[in-house]
Formats: sequence, C-alpha cells, structure tokens
Amino acid sequence: MSIKLYHCLSARSFRPLWMLEELRLAYELIVLPFPPRALQRSYLDVNPLGTIPLFEDGPVRMTESAAICQYLADKAAPTPLRIGPEEAEYGAYLNFLHFGEATLTFPQTLVLRYGRFEPDARKLPEVADAYAKWFLGRLRTLEPHLAAREYLVASRFTAADVSVGYALMLAELIGLDAHFLPAVAAYWQRLKARPAYGRALAAQITAAEAQGVSPVPAPQAVPA
Amino acid sequence: MSIKLYHCLSARSFRPLWMLEELRLAYELIVLPFPPRALQRSYLDVNPLGTIPLFEDGPVRMTESAAICQYLADKAAPTPLRIGPEEAEYGAYLNFLHFGEATLTFPQTLVLRYGRFEPDARKLPEVADAYAKWFLGRLRTLEPHLAAREYLVASRFTAADVSVGYALMLAELIGLDAHFLPAVAAYWQRLKARPAYGRALAAQITAAEAQGVSPVPAPQAVPA
Repeated sequence: MSIKLYHCLSARSFRPLWMLEELRLAYELIVLPFPPRALQRSYLDVNPLGTIPLFEDGPVRMTESAAICQYLADKAAPTPLRIGPEEAEYGAYLNFLHFGEATLTFPQTLVLRYGRFEPDARKLPEVADAYAKWFLGRLRTLEPHLAAREYLVASRFTAADVSVGYALMLAELIGLDAHFLPAVAAYWQRLKARPAYGRALAAQITAAEAQGVSPVPAPQAVPA
Repeated sequence: MSIKLYHCLSARSFRPLWMLEELRLAYELIVLPFPPRALQRSYLDVNPLGTIPLFEDGPVRMTESAAICQYLADKAAPTPLRIGPEEAEYGAYLNFLHFGEATLTFPQTLVLRYGRFEPDARKLPEVADAYAKWFLGRLRTLEPHLAAREYLVASRFTAADVSVGYALMLAELIGLDAHFLPAVAAYWQRLKARPAYGRALAAQITAAEAQGVSPVPAPQAVPA
C-alpha cells in the first residue's frame, strides 16, 4: 500500500500530515497552491469536491481530515495514539476527534472568509466577529478539562489531540491565540513542542519548494 | 448503564435518536426548547457548551452527534450498522460519518442563521445564499456515488447513512431538497421509509408533549 496526501500549506490536511509523522509512516506529499479549485483546476479531476485533504491509501480514498487521523491510528494499531472501543475513554476520544473539526475549525473558516479572503467590498466584519466569538466560547469549555490533564483523553497523546491541536494551530495563524486561557495555552505549547509536529512543518516546506509551489505564509493557505 | 439524550426537535441530536431507534436500545429522551442557551439557562449547568445533543451513557458524556452514532454502533456490536477496521470500506465509513456533519450540516446552519433566525436588520441573504450553494456543490459529489449504490458504504445501511441522512433531513426542512439530484433524492426517500426513522420522529413529538415543550415546527428548532 502506498499513502498519498494532497495538501495545502497549513490547511486542514496538516492533521493527517502530523499523524503520519507521529506514526513514522512512509507517504508521498503533494502540495497544491491555495485554493486549488481556482489555481489548479486539474485537481478537480482527482477530487471533485475540490477540498483539501485528499488522502489515498491503496484503494482507500478519504477527504475528512479528522476521519483520516482515526483511520491512521487504527491502521497503525497497536499504537498509543489510538483509543479502542474497549477503553473507558473511547467515547471521549471519538467526541474530540469530531469536536476539533466540526466545533472548533469550521467557525474559524468564517473568520478567514469574511475577515480576510473576500475582496474588501464583500468582507463582512460582523460575521467574522460573530464566529471568532463563537469559536472562543466553545474553546473556553476546554479550559477546566485541560487544567486537570496533560492531554485530552486517557492521559496520553492521541489522534484526538491532533484533531483539536490543528484547530489551535489555525487559531494561532489568524491571531485568535491571544485569547487562549492559561491551560489551553500551555496545552498548545506542549503540542507544538512535539518532534513530529516540527517534522510535519518542515515536510510541508520541503515538499512545496521541491514542487515549485510558493510556501505562502500560512493564514493565506487555509481553505474557507 | 442508562442512556440519556438531551434533544431539540429535529436538531442534530436527531442523529443519535435515530441510531437508538435503529438499534432498539432503551433511552431517556429529554426535549429542550430551542435554543436552550436562551430558553432554558439551567441547561448550561448540564452542558457548558450549550449545544445539542448532550448524550450520557453511564460515565460517558458526548456532544458531537456523528461521534455518538459511531459510539453507539460500536457499543451494539455485532450489528450491521457498524463497519469495523477489518472491513474494506472502513475508511469510507469514517469519512462519511464526518462528512455528514462537517461538510454537509455546518453550511446549512449559516443558511438558517442569516436567512431565518437573525432579526431582519441582521439578516445577510448573501451569506445564506453562499452557503446554500456551498452545501449543494458538496452534495452534488454524492450523486454518482449513490447512482451506483443503495447505501453509502458496504452495500448496507450503517451509522454513516444516519450521519449523512440527517443533513438531508435538515435540507428538506429548509427547502433545499428541491435541488436534490435524482440519486440523492431516491436515497433520501429510502432512508425516510425506514421504520426506525419514523419511530424517532414519533418519539420526539411524544416526549415534547409529555414534557410540556412546544413541538415547534422543525426548521425553527435547529441550532445555528
């Protein structure tokens, strides 16, 4: 089986990239200019959704970044990054895998779209502000949880931390990290200090340069 | 273990309700007026996120509707509603569980918020229209997939169909179903014809009436 990941710099596809580095799996990284729908139309032939990531593992095709994290953890089993149904915190693990994307990432795409990406005449600061508050309100509920724990579930780093961790990475890229409360801020520092996180950051720059894609500063490279 | 589900009529919490009926599990259904954050402030003591659903199974607490569907399928194993890591379509199963919420449901909450829920002075039809198009564009990619299949994965009804099925239910509630292409429209008819779907619809009305909550018409009962 050969793993192939279609990626834009610091976009959601960073989640599977980070997981691949945590698990030390071999993979091919294809870096696309952002947004690929506009700048690399041929990508629509590969992924009609036009979204990033596209992940291929032999015949397996996936497009949802948090789902790919769970898939990779299961594929690599046994690994501490996976929580299985037999463990007490399995429900919490599944919940955080979804929470990282559906509850913590999507609102930030509204901040990006209506605060940055749209041309000035179509910017809507009231929408950007509403969803920045929305994100920060949801994030606040993690504070008591993380004040008592090093990682989200089962006292160890898992795929759930990659899912939520990417939402914090994105928040930092767009400047919302200034509002992190202490336990979330400390958690984010712990995640960023992981060697695999650093390897994933380096891998995307190396691949972009090798493939002639501009290593655009990250906030411009996140799909809305 | 006793299962408790906090629910608003036809909100995302319909996903776990539908699953519970498919699996014929015993549960307690607590119906809240929408939005509970505003109309039942005491709910914030139970769920500081203020979101629906909240699902409890003994010590397990979950708030992400698609994650709860996977959890329930695993809990009820062996059941045809679950796909395990040993099956060829496991990756597709995980992907559709996430896709139903992150890709197909969130955009519809923008349509609701800026097209219906906000007071007239704060409505933004351009946002509602943009995300209706966004939803329909993503949904279109299911058409060739469903033209060749009865269900999303593994030739049988699974939790992935519940996740995506709720997005179609919501689309019907807000009138976007007029734009369904033929294979998606036929698939949605198949899902609605399931006895467990009908039981879930009846259960939410019965519980609302018994608990003195107005069985508000559904589009008003969906969290933005």
